[in-house]
Amino acid sequence: MATMKDIAEAAGISIGTVDRIIHNRGRYSEETAELVRKAMKELNYTPNIHARGLKQTKKHIFSVVLPKREQDGGYWRLVEEGILKAANELASFGNDIRIFPFDRYSSASCINALYMALSSDTEGMLIAACRPDDMRAPLEDTDLPYIFIDTNIPDLKQRTAYIGQDSRQSGILAGKLMSLLISGRASAGQDQYVLVVDPPGSNFHLYNRIEGFRYYMDAVMPEIRLITLKAEVDNESHFHSRLKEFHIKNQALPIGIFAANSSVYYIASFLEKEGDEYRSVPLVGYDIIPGRESAIEKGTIDFILTQQPEVQGYRGIIMLYDHIVLRKEVSKEVIMPLNIITRENIHTFTGYMNG
Amino acid sequence: MATMKDIAEAAGISIGTVDRIIHNRGRYSEETAELVRKAMKELNYTPNIHARGLKQTKKHIFSVVLPKREQDGGYWRLVEEGILKAANELASFGNDIRIFPFDRYSSASCINALYMALSSDTEGMLIAACRPDDMRAPLEDTDLPYIFIDTNIPDLKQRTAYIGQDSRQSGILAGKLMSLLISGRASAGQDQYVLVVDPPGSNFHLYNRIEGFRYYMDAVMPEIRLITLKAEVDNESHFHSRLKEFHIKNQALPIGIFAANSSVYYIASFLEKEGDEYRSVPLVGYDIIPGRESAIEKGTIDFILTQQPEVQGYRGIIMLYDHIVLRKEVSKEVIMPLNIITRENIHTFTGYMNG
Repeated sequence: MATMKDIAEAAGISIGTVDRIIHNRGRYSEETAELVRKAMKELNYTPNIHARGLKQTKKHIFSVVLPKREQDGGYWRLVEEGILKAANELASFGNDIRIFPFDRYSSASCINALYMALSSDTEGMLIAACRPDDMRAPLEDTDLPYIFIDTNIPDLKQRTAYIGQDSRQSGILAGKLMSLLISGRASAGQDQYVLVVDPPGSNFHLYNRIEGFRYYMDAVMPEIRLITLKAEVDNESHFHSRLKEFHIKNQALPIGIFAANSSVYYIASFLEKEGDEYRSVPLVGYDIIPGRESAIEKGTIDFILTQQPEVQGYRGIIMLYDHIVLRKEVSKEVIMPLNIITRENIHTFTGYMNG
Repeated sequence: MATMKDIAEAAGISIGTVDRIIHNRGRYSEETAELVRKAMKELNYTPNIHARGLKQTKKHIFSVVLPKREQDGGYWRLVEEGILKAANELASFGNDIRIFPFDRYSSASCINALYMALSSDTEGMLIAACRPDDMRAPLEDTDLPYIFIDTNIPDLKQRTAYIGQDSRQSGILAGKLMSLLISGRASAGQDQYVLVVDPPGSNFHLYNRIEGFRYYMDAVMPEIRLITLKAEVDNESHFHSRLKEFHIKNQALPIGIFAANSSVYYIASFLEKEGDEYRSVPLVGYDIIPGRESAIEKGTIDFILTQQPEVQGYRGIIMLYDHIVLRKEVSKEVIMPLNIITRENIHTFTGYMNG
């Protein structure tokens, strides 16, 4: 644990001067400040928020390109909350974060938001690459640094970092939980199936989750068929009618249902409406959505995997700031803890923000 | 989101003055600082680390009473790491955190550490109440505020807060995971049992975890017997010989093993030594211990529940500081997220510190 005294000794100056420089008050020369920064780095002086205010004279502007907050069942609102929390902290040093929202199901809206962000007076961007095909070309053209959040495009050259989840691994984990849930129900010789709900939109995330889930299930329970149901519209009643249609066609209930995103709540409300036999079908999906926790508390949803969207938003902005303003080394890839939520631990997650 | 401008308007002073006060530079009067603090409180201005340095002139000393870092398989080392991280951040404002370690299995050592802490020049304490019977009397006598960490004594009057886990609920969650793990193995009419390993020492924590586990198992799988094995010494080879003895007496292997703390790693090494049939017995326990993750990665341990000891230590100190120095309202009870760790998500937790 380096102290100010250690830094003063290493830099060969007085503690008073180190204190002035670290707290950015009184007079000091840029040369001395450079010595202090060097000593801080060498001694691995705890980088706390003070460092973020160190001798910052210029106002910095960052842009965020993100789906509209109400999309994906309110998921993006949570990401935005974390972003606003970081923006608020950085605002006291005169930084400005501008959000450019887009409709995640519209190519035109996505391209427009990205161009607006790129042509604004910005030094760097935080981008949710939910529409990689639309985003690739404009991002190949820019010299601005950017960090991907939630969804990654790994091969772009200006990409500074990615913060998100290991989505294939989360699908594998979902497969493991599903296999445990149905292991008491699977009976030899019977034609049983698990329903895999493929939500609207397409991105690496959804693809990888489903791929990981299939991989695990095929390896561990090869006798169980996996039937995919594709939904076209991000809307609760659309999901309900798709499920109803499917059930009329396939008389037998699935022995388990996996939803590759927060549309799991639409499936839960369908199962609850249809009665006890439906409600008891094991259900695994993604994300805690405020206001919809009751589906987990009642046990309609058996397991939820979550990638802590607020923390992702918060850390994404801090990484951008550290990279651009403080020129600190940032990790190329930050993988969020993959939390398993169920009836018995959800109360310890809601109301506790890991910021 | 309140900004400095909002605070300036609410306090009826210039932004420059607010800035000087918040960043504690230049001159200002205590009266004006009081106005700013009041406005910050009313506007719910984001409390970040700046607030912690606000006009602090006195040096503050806090004491920590904690088991020795090597006990409980290295668990307390993690708590201490979080405490040191917070101590390091607060050190730049001239605060001092002193740790008084005790032997968790010795009454004399515990009482001595607590008296040393109480009679030191301290303003408040962070205490792991692992030996409630020894700690109660001295704590009833003191006027110092204290926060319990990890283990609680709810009825003490000077108690400011508790940070820890809902231990009975974690036992219930362990029961749920166990019931899923063995649901494919439980066969009607057979005399099957789950082994419950009761670690040495006694505290509310261990008691509640085991009680919660029993409660869930009795409700959901009443046909499965629960057999308790009490271990007397916190030592790997002691556990191995206790398990060996037990197995000689009870020929049949258990269909599952639950360990109420990090001694689950001692059980894992026993199962690995004894061969494949043993290794495949479902095993559920507590805590990620650095250097021993391989038991989870190999799947010998099926599920680990963790209470994030580093984050507890870090937040415990910050709460103490907020309460005593900043006189901020702190929550009476902070329950940590109860994380479920398994082979498929452990890599997202190690190396990611939620501080």
